[in-house]
Amino acid sequence: MSTGAGDIDLAPPLQVAQWLNTDVPLDLASLRGKVVLIVAFQLLCPGCVSQGLPQANRIHQSFGPSDLQVLGLHSVFEHHDAQGPVTLAAFLHENRIRFPVAVDAPADNGPIPRTMQDYRLQGTPSFMLIGRDGGLKAVRFGHVPDLQMGAEIAQLLLERRPDV
Amino acid sequence: MSTGAGDIDLAPPLQVAQWLNTDVPLDLASLRGKVVLIVAFQLLCPGCVSQGLPQANRIHQSFGPSDLQVLGLHSVFEHHDAQGPVTLAAFLHENRIRFPVAVDAPADNGPIPRTMQDYRLQGTPSFMLIGRDGGLKAVRFGHVPDLQMGAEIAQLLLERRPDV
Amino acid sequence: MSTGAGDIDLAPPLQVAQWLNTDVPLDLASLRGKVVLIVAFQLLCPGCVSQGLPQANRIHQSFGPSDLQVLGLHSVFEHHDAQGPVTLAAFLHENRIRFPVAVDAPADNGPIPRTMQDYRLQGTPSFMLIGRDGGLKAVRFGHVPDLQMGAEIAQLLLERRPDV
Amino acid sequence: MSTGAGDIDLAPPLQVAQWLNTDVPLDLASLRGKVVLIVAFQLLCPGCVSQGLPQANRIHQSFGPSDLQVLGLHSVFEHHDAQGPVTLAAFLHENRIRFPVAVDAPADNGPIPRTMQDYRLQGTPSFMLIGRDGGLKAVRFGHVPDLQMGAEIAQLLLERRPDV
Repeated sequence: MSTGAGDIDLAPPLQVAQWLNTDVPLDLASLRGKVVLIVAFQLLCPGCVSQGLPQANRIHQSFGPSDLQVLGLHSVFEHHDAQGPVTLAAFLHENRIRFPVAVDAPADNGPIPRTMQDYRLQGTPSFMLIGRDGGLKAVRFGHVPDLQMGAEIAQLLLERRPDV
Repeated sequence: MSTGAGDIDLAPPLQVAQWLNTDVPLDLASLRGKVVLIVAFQLLCPGCVSQGLPQANRIHQSFGPSDLQVLGLHSVFEHHDAQGPVTLAAFLHENRIRFPVAVDAPADNGPIPRTMQDYRLQGTPSFMLIGRDGGLKAVRFGHVPDLQMGAEIAQLLLERRPDV
Repeated sequence: MSTGAGDIDLAPPLQVAQWLNTDVPLDLASLRGKVVLIVAFQLLCPGCVSQGLPQANRIHQSFGPSDLQVLGLHSVFEHHDAQGPVTLAAFLHENRIRFPVAVDAPADNGPIPRTMQDYRLQGTPSFMLIGRDGGLKAVRFGHVPDLQMGAEIAQLLLERRPDV
Repeated sequence: MSTGAGDIDLAPPLQVAQWLNTDVPLDLASLRGKVVLIVAFQLLCPGCVSQGLPQANRIHQSFGPSDLQVLGLHSVFEHHDAQGPVTLAAFLHENRIRFPVAVDAPADNGPIPRTMQDYRLQGTPSFMLIGRDGGLKAVRFGHVPDLQMGAEIAQLLLERRPDV
């Protein structure tokens, strides 16, 4: 836990090509004061459909929205032609994903999109946990047991809100 | 079990726009003598990704290919723009589906494709079981327990091959 | 498949200290003509409570009793003092086991009971599959996937009844 | 959260006939300062073997022992003759339960043991969560999802230790 803004390892800003499931664009700075859970996924990733996204839905429903913001991040790093915005919109509908989803912005230097690069993600699904102070607290790749996930989120929820 | 060709409720032929995972087009008539299991799916259907297709993969691996042919049938009846051939090819790769997959041919009379109409499927996933004699033995919608599925397939495998 | 009584590897007879869930003692000879599935278990075996016995219950409910007989065999080879008949009776009630259960007879030559020795079981749970002709068709130790179990049972069900 | 000892709804003391898995008897008063999770179970309860006790083992392994104490409570309210101390000892061994287990003391007024009465448990498995201040924070009957369990435990872990 950090004691001052100077000490915080701030979560990198999201680089977003498009937002879905929200009328207004979101950014991490304006979510300061809340805990933020970001699930990075690809619509063609079986582990995301079977485990990662259902878990994100359970988290979205278990914890109150007043203190926790769940966000999706569609970080396509392969099969770009196969995972476009029309398919993504239908995918969110069929998988009953109601929380806001950002499309990770393409990069100039290769297939890995920008936010995925900035967070140094290893693949999908990945979970990024951001504290009330905007600090990046944890990045987890693959399956995270519910017991551990619940404990990590609760711990961050109980950290003091930063003085504004 | 039927005793003569005249008594058989023959499985309707597949109406196929395109084949994947096979060099040559297949048809049910040329598979006579084998049991055929067809899994109808849509790539955006969560129950297909989580349950139906993994089960079809288990069946494909558990039973020898000499007597059982597993086929996929991509029967898109909604979100047509989102589930095109480029996305399907990538989907099969990511879900490790190695058995032949037919794209159900679009119909002139609405969103439900032709084979899906002919078999009167209620949705996806659905399983169609075809006997060695080409007869349609069962159509199952949704989740079928493995115990029952194994028993139904074994029963058909043990039916006598038709005299050719 | 065997063609005559002389060729059959007959399943060894059950050596039973006590029967539960049946008014009359059973024996394999009088079950000739049916397929018999025997699940060997111990009441203190976690894998039996979590997987083996629920699977036996599913089999008991999925297949008709006219052609398949499910039997339990309580083969205690450790913690003998802890798994006596009073505890077993309560255990069957709590685990909703309705099929007949035999208590494997203690041996004179060590902790492993007699039937368990005759079938050379490696531990619990184990499944023994006996054909309509009384032949021992398979012995499986540990977890058997439902798909395989259903297929093996169906295959035996479809073997011809022996001429009596 | 309570602000003074006078306001706390203290967890009732454990009424124990016998301890297992510990050399010295434990009591809640001496555990003050730690969070305590008690899982009430019966060795013949299938839901305890399949779900409740494996979950308690996961909790015991996930959270450090310095701040969380997991305890078992064998609260037998039926089949008393079938669930005696010899069977319990073998049961703990087979189910790999390493945390201390108390045998709930029999009552004079019926089949429900004393601690189970004092906590007004509805059955087994049940989970009792006790805060660092000794207060009874939650009692849960049946299956509790891992996500919720992890969050509740983490929340209690983050409450301030009482001034001693």
